[in-house]
Amino acid sequence: MAIITLTTDLGTKDFYQAALKGSILSLFPEVNIIDITNEVPSFNVSYAAYVLKNAYAYFPKGTVHLIGIDSVFSKNTRYLAVKHNGHYFVGADNGIFSLLFDRIPDEIVELNILQDLKYLQFPLVDIFVKASVHLAKGASMIDIGIPSDQIIERGTIQPVIEKDMIRGSVIYIDTFSNVITNITKDLFTKIQDNREFTLYFRKNETITQLSWHYNEVQEGEKLCLFGMSDHLEIAINKGKASGLLGLHVNDIVRIEFHN
Amino acid sequence: MAIITLTTDLGTKDFYQAALKGSILSLFPEVNIIDITNEVPSFNVSYAAYVLKNAYAYFPKGTVHLIGIDSVFSKNTRYLAVKHNGHYFVGADNGIFSLLFDRIPDEIVELNILQDLKYLQFPLVDIFVKASVHLAKGASMIDIGIPSDQIIERGTIQPVIEKDMIRGSVIYIDTFSNVITNITKDLFTKIQDNREFTLYFRKNETITQLSWHYNEVQEGEKLCLFGMSDHLEIAINKGKASGLLGLHVNDIVRIEFHN
Amino acid sequence: MAIITLTTDLGTKDFYQAALKGSILSLFPEVNIIDITNEVPSFNVSYAAYVLKNAYAYFPKGTVHLIGIDSVFSKNTRYLAVKHNGHYFVGADNGIFSLLFDRIPDEIVELNILQDLKYLQFPLVDIFVKASVHLAKGASMIDIGIPSDQIIERGTIQPVIEKDMIRGSVIYIDTFSNVITNITKDLFTKIQDNREFTLYFRKNETITQLSWHYNEVQEGEKLCLFGMSDHLEIAINKGKASGLLGLHVNDIVRIEFHN
Repeated sequence: MAIITLTTDLGTKDFYQAALKGSILSLFPEVNIIDITNEVPSFNVSYAAYVLKNAYAYFPKGTVHLIGIDSVFSKNTRYLAVKHNGHYFVGADNGIFSLLFDRIPDEIVELNILQDLKYLQFPLVDIFVKASVHLAKGASMIDIGIPSDQIIERGTIQPVIEKDMIRGSVIYIDTFSNVITNITKDLFTKIQDNREFTLYFRKNETITQLSWHYNEVQEGEKLCLFGMSDHLEIAINKGKASGLLGLHVNDIVRIEFHN
Repeated sequence: MAIITLTTDLGTKDFYQAALKGSILSLFPEVNIIDITNEVPSFNVSYAAYVLKNAYAYFPKGTVHLIGIDSVFSKNTRYLAVKHNGHYFVGADNGIFSLLFDRIPDEIVELNILQDLKYLQFPLVDIFVKASVHLAKGASMIDIGIPSDQIIERGTIQPVIEKDMIRGSVIYIDTFSNVITNITKDLFTKIQDNREFTLYFRKNETITQLSWHYNEVQEGEKLCLFGMSDHLEIAINKGKASGLLGLHVNDIVRIEFHN
Repeated sequence: MAIITLTTDLGTKDFYQAALKGSILSLFPEVNIIDITNEVPSFNVSYAAYVLKNAYAYFPKGTVHLIGIDSVFSKNTRYLAVKHNGHYFVGADNGIFSLLFDRIPDEIVELNILQDLKYLQFPLVDIFVKASVHLAKGASMIDIGIPSDQIIERGTIQPVIEKDMIRGSVIYIDTFSNVITNITKDLFTKIQDNREFTLYFRKNETITQLSWHYNEVQEGEKLCLFGMSDHLEIAINKGKASGLLGLHVNDIVRIEFHN
């Protein structure tokens, strides 16, 4: 059964996401529409990228991921379909594709299924739906666009790395109030090189152990672990780390390694 | 694949909308249930009407739209199924049908598939589900109710129109904080008659250009346009217009036309 | 069409519930996934139990209900599949099964489909999905676990009952701000024994009539009734009872019966 997922900032209380779903079903009644989330904060491309990057690989290969964020037409706007790791992605070339993947995607086409892009009222319905349905029905990329090898690069703040230190920052706070940083497990493991470490954050807070599960410390105690997203995460067992520790997006964390 | 959509104020954290979906699937396992929204503010019939009016036509003809709002039984309550523009609607005759359509609907039946309406605990499950499933399975209107030619009219505040002026009001604030008025594109175009205009709101705010896209002004600047709903909308490019401009539901806006 | 429902505290803005759905669809593309709710307050097992207990029976027999709450691995954690009243339930043995059912469930197995539970990062995906899909595809309980006859009992506050009095407490506030108590219709009816009653709450508030529908009193007036959950509920016709009456979870209510 073909699947189209939605990652948008359209919310769930207006008619916008319903219009999107109705449009999809009008063209392809048998498709299975799954919300990744429609609650991306308005225009927050980084947020959308973080969520979709971590979610998409759980879906079957061949799934089409429609990205409805920051897609208003302007004269420089390009609308793309991208194939990567066996998955399809449809969205505006606003930098999100560079955030989703670690390298240039396997295949890119610039959508050309509509002529008068200038008059698009609602690109998500007018062009993204058509492209997504084409792909979900098994049409090839080349049927809906012109091959391209470029995507807009969007900078992200990367951790600063030294021989005995990583300085990273908070990129996301989740529903549980867990604090997720831009320090990946790969990076941590490489720099750690089997040494001890101290994670510093806020004024005087430190953590010196890596946990595997949230409940390896007492309830209410802080811990760090590599969570589902393979990013270093600061949490409190059954507590709300962001609020209790005063950690917010963009805050700095520092890890020092020692023998 | 038959579709039943839901427009309700049942929320998404209680068991009510799940009970509705379970009841539908128990009667019709193959149906595709799509949430238009379950987050209508409690008892807000106008809100539900605005959302559904703008969403329903995106769905395929034959779709059944279940309206779960303000449907508690009382001795005067009528439960209706309505066919209009090839779509089906099931709900309580609380005025919503007059808000959804610009004219009396094509077909109306008063539901008679249950006898003891008085003892209904949860009309949405007890009667709306049965009626919706009947229609989604292709049964005719006459099988589930008695033809009627009446619906309760619910007044809405209409714009005041003069030769050189329209005075309207705000009817809806969306997820992006865009401000939507009761002035439609048809009305605006007719009174404008190719003249210049000035849109006045709040104390001293004015807009004199109609935009086609949100990004035709600088980020943070205000604009007006006809959005997806064909209603005049006041927005800020990538900003939250309602909050920043202090515009709320029922606030007045005025358009003056001049050469 | 096989159905898997989700009752979780994963929220709808992160990638977690999407990962869950993608994992299910990867194993069983034809299954119909229905959200009971993903908005259980973090770790609130009682809340999850209240919602699922009241929702599940609306679904067709054979439905699999995946319970994603408080399921982090620890050395004593047992993951169970349970069959009861023709429905399947998959979750951690954290007490929720004792809250869901009035008696020991019909069948219980302790899941043994994974060996290295210790390394589970995300039990919902790693083990609950596999178990749920097995059951949704029609496999038997015994294929995925070892029979058990034990579940962890989780205490709940039960009403205090005397000959002429029931003292209960508030267990849930719903989306409409209705106040739901732990006094069931069966209990009330038995103790009432056709007598008059006075329901006391807060300092001086009383209600002496049982309503059948919310609108049997004037708008804005308080009432009590047995709602969809068969629990005594205090409400205000078209008003927000919890806020207006100052009633919150764990607050005490008292019913006195008299001739």
